[in-house]
Amino acid sequence: MAEALVLLDFSLSPFGVRVRIALAEKGIKYEYKEEDLKDKSSLLLQMNPVHKQIPVLIHNGKPICESFIIVQYIDEVWKDKSPLLPSDPYRQAQARFWADFVDKKVVNCGRRIWLVKGEEKEAAKELIECLKMLEGELGDKPYFGGESFGFVDVALVPFYSWFYTYETCANFSIEAECPKLVAWAKRCMEKESVSNSLPDPHKIYDYVLQVRKRIGID
Amino acid sequence: MAEALVLLDFSLSPFGVRVRIALAEKGIKYEYKEEDLKDKSSLLLQMNPVHKQIPVLIHNGKPICESFIIVQYIDEVWKDKSPLLPSDPYRQAQARFWADFVDKKVVNCGRRIWLVKGEEKEAAKELIECLKMLEGELGDKPYFGGESFGFVDVALVPFYSWFYTYETCANFSIEAECPKLVAWAKRCMEKESVSNSLPDPHKIYDYVLQVRKRIGID
Repeated sequence: MAEALVLLDFSLSPFGVRVRIALAEKGIKYEYKEEDLKDKSSLLLQMNPVHKQIPVLIHNGKPICESFIIVQYIDEVWKDKSPLLPSDPYRQAQARFWADFVDKKVVNCGRRIWLVKGEEKEAAKELIECLKMLEGELGDKPYFGGESFGFVDVALVPFYSWFYTYETCANFSIEAECPKLVAWAKRCMEKESVSNSLPDPHKIYDYVLQVRKRIGID
Repeated sequence: MAEALVLLDFSLSPFGVRVRIALAEKGIKYEYKEEDLKDKSSLLLQMNPVHKQIPVLIHNGKPICESFIIVQYIDEVWKDKSPLLPSDPYRQAQARFWADFVDKKVVNCGRRIWLVKGEEKEAAKELIECLKMLEGELGDKPYFGGESFGFVDVALVPFYSWFYTYETCANFSIEAECPKLVAWAKRCMEKESVSNSLPDPHKIYDYVLQVRKRIGID
């Protein structure tokens, strides 16, 4: 079946990275379109008029928005290869719970570290608490999905390339506090679907410095 | 199959109402346990140690947390009766998108109306904008789910019993601005699963007055 698949994205976005990893896991070819977030394309505004945000996956002309919704869509449409969500309803609910935890807690603490002056230390402390909870959930499994890479792995691993920025902004070491989690991230990075999708941590830090300068908190 | 099903909830919570409606739609019997949010039970703290929040559905001893995750779990486990999410992946993604919109936008505007002094008018204006977008999505369908009541209906309708509080706190009329949405809510209220689950709007307003008094914004 000929599929027209276009991804509107911004290379440094951890939300976009989720979608790129999911597509790579499934081995799906698509057209990548980089968005300038300071001058969004008319296609983006037309495809996501509600939030006006990337990532947007356009499948045969129809838009799907919001990273977790896109990843679930990809998992549902291309069921046969590399399932991301478990089929058991309880394990599925648990995977959704921890992915949601990443969005509610990790994303928020991370933003406060680099975007809110004076909150770096407190936010870094809270981030470590969150990552320790995730470490507890990971336990001795190789991936959050168990023996195979899954939905929670896709949700969290994009933030690994932000660790350098968090650590540099708030002067702490995530590996010293959460060695098992960093070992998990390195294990994920051995997968091409992940290593090819994650941006260079230094590029993220350069971007963060630019944003901080623009809003006057450097 | 004998099922042990317990719901930890707070009667006025719109998130808890979602779960109660889903259970009622499926015709599932369960034990309801009311939580005192100022003195949470050890069972709640044990079952949801991460967020310490209601609602929590305990199914054969295993907890499921977060209203949308619970509703999806219920829909998945009790598939045969009254499906809530569409089976088509694109329609499923659209339903998730609008449910997520309710959580990100409607919930936030609503809270600002009754919980943040001085923001009532601005938040009420934004709430109307959100409800108009939802009205656009509803179109001429009887329910967001189309001909039958579904996931987005479950997500949004609990807030209908908060409309009185929003309107009283910010002195505006939702029905004057969004007549089609209010007609939809009244249509939902004709279903016993909804009317038996929604709290009395005056009880919500009394509760809001108590909270405002406690935090010093009455």
